[in-house]
Amino acid sequence: LDIFLRHTGGIGFIGAGTDVSELESHLQKATTLLNSTSLPTSSTLPIGIGFINWGASLGATDPLIQQYRPSAVWFFAPRSLAALQTWTTETRNASPGTKIWVQIGSVEEAINTLTIGPDVLVVQGTDAGGHGRTRGAGIVPLFPEVHDAVHTRGSEHGGKVPILLAAGGIVESRTAASALVLGASGVVLGTRLLASHEANISAGYQNTILNTFDGGQTTVRTKVYDELRGTTGWAETHNARGVINKSYTDWEQGMELEENKALYEKEMKKGDEGWGVGARMTTYAGSGVGLIKTVMPAGEIVKSVREGVGKVLSRFNL
Amino acid sequence: LDIFLRHTGGIGFIGAGTDVSELESHLQKATTLLNSTSLPTSSTLPIGIGFINWGASLGATDPLIQQYRPSAVWFFAPRSLAALQTWTTETRNASPGTKIWVQIGSVEEAINTLTIGPDVLVVQGTDAGGHGRTRGAGIVPLFPEVHDAVHTRGSEHGGKVPILLAAGGIVESRTAASALVLGASGVVLGTRLLASHEANISAGYQNTILNTFDGGQTTVRTKVYDELRGTTGWAETHNARGVINKSYTDWEQGMELEENKALYEKEMKKGDEGWGVGARMTTYAGSGVGLIKTVMPAGEIVKSVREGVGKVLSRFNL
Repeated sequence: LDIFLRHTGGIGFIGAGTDVSELESHLQKATTLLNSTSLPTSSTLPIGIGFINWGASLGATDPLIQQYRPSAVWFFAPRSLAALQTWTTETRNASPGTKIWVQIGSVEEAINTLTIGPDVLVVQGTDAGGHGRTRGAGIVPLFPEVHDAVHTRGSEHGGKVPILLAAGGIVESRTAASALVLGASGVVLGTRLLASHEANISAGYQNTILNTFDGGQTTVRTKVYDELRGTTGWAETHNARGVINKSYTDWEQGMELEENKALYEKEMKKGDEGWGVGARMTTYAGSGVGLIKTVMPAGEIVKSVREGVGKVLSRFNL
Repeated sequence: LDIFLRHTGGIGFIGAGTDVSELESHLQKATTLLNSTSLPTSSTLPIGIGFINWGASLGATDPLIQQYRPSAVWFFAPRSLAALQTWTTETRNASPGTKIWVQIGSVEEAINTLTIGPDVLVVQGTDAGGHGRTRGAGIVPLFPEVHDAVHTRGSEHGGKVPILLAAGGIVESRTAASALVLGASGVVLGTRLLASHEANISAGYQNTILNTFDGGQTTVRTKVYDELRGTTGWAETHNARGVINKSYTDWEQGMELEENKALYEKEMKKGDEGWGVGARMTTYAGSGVGLIKTVMPAGEIVKSVREGVGKVLSRFNL
């Protein structure tokens, strides 16, 4: 981890999600791009892959991990701890150098996950955009409680304590610095990178990120967007945070799902105009969305957050 | 503010809430206690009073503020900005030295509140226990966005920028330090002080605070507890976070409110056994409840948090 933080200022993840059918072409593209950089050669590809385990095919993934040897895999929302164990074992067999990151959203989930021996736990607070636990806490109380529980229980698992990262509401340097003060070894940027040049999203989506403020009031955790999009394989324990739009307010006012879905599918044909508060396309975003004002290259975002953290913390030199 | 932070390590508030009928006896008691301390004499009483403005009577409060001159009043959840303006004007007339604190939970509410010229804004994140905004963000994204908005808009109100404090999920030194890093001038402890010797709550309530962990999963924001208790004057915009207990799970499973209320009223006669996960008495608590392990004197809690903040931040000396 530290190698990549030092050389590139961060590590990026290809989001395979529930569908690995395009993963190989993304990995080929990443390999080509990475070969053209001055990064030091390494036994692993300096990029990670993110999986939503309940939907992704381990059978299709395994040969790709063996061939491309990503530096890290990010596991999230398995159907069971046994399934997570299988993914972990198979990944370690296919590529021993690949680090296992697991995203969790509660103290109980963190403790249970220790049994599979993760290298990194990503502690996701409820401010995060997109999918996460339906119930949750912000990282301010969640992270320290997970930290203490993991360090206490770590000794029961051969003393191995994973690296702990914080996610959820972290979009700029103050928010990142606060996570480090809570005890995090590093932070995760999600929504902030939607407003990067490299983000593979429509201009309509990106403009909505820039134009949304006061995220605690203008985003909401809900299963409605999954229902409209047909991504209904998520467990009851999980929903997703998105910008409140017409789909949501219509649902809130009692519109039948079938009608709402038909309107959603019509909206899909509108292009960029389908996004926005008065439109219907799903705009997953965290509640820190209001702090995002400009689209920047991803590398500049990571660099400015890292440099800003030093400035924020230097105010407290004692 | 600073005087009290330096001499006592914090400032305490008498919670008048919606009912000021016992406020005078509390103020008399506080005056007696404060006269027996070595605090420097001051033109105001070194204590604050907290009001839930939609329910409290300004007519009954005004003479008490004039007579006892509290250092601060804490305003929360007025029916309108006009009502908040009236409370502010009347308080300043009755006791010019009394500082006006207003608790807000969104960027919009913060900006609107600037028009009444508060001395302090308490920025309440959604991790807070008890009442707050139904929708919200944790302080990690909320505080910096409020901070920036208030500093930008402050110039439109004669350049007066209120002191900003953070509330919600702050229970020990790491959480307090993170709030300072976010830009807060100070922090508010609520749930943590329920586990103090001085807290005016039953042992059943206090034990539930000590025995509840993983607060993101074991507490919930809801209006159910208000309905059971008959405290139904709150606006639609507000609900309250409490420990999930039998009242809540029965409601979730469809029990009629009347039946639930009858069971609640029966439970009230059980004393300390009426509290707990398997019981029915409302246990308002924030999602940082899992970090609270011991009952301590309130002064020791404040002191240990303050001293701990220094230690946490000294790890980052650059």
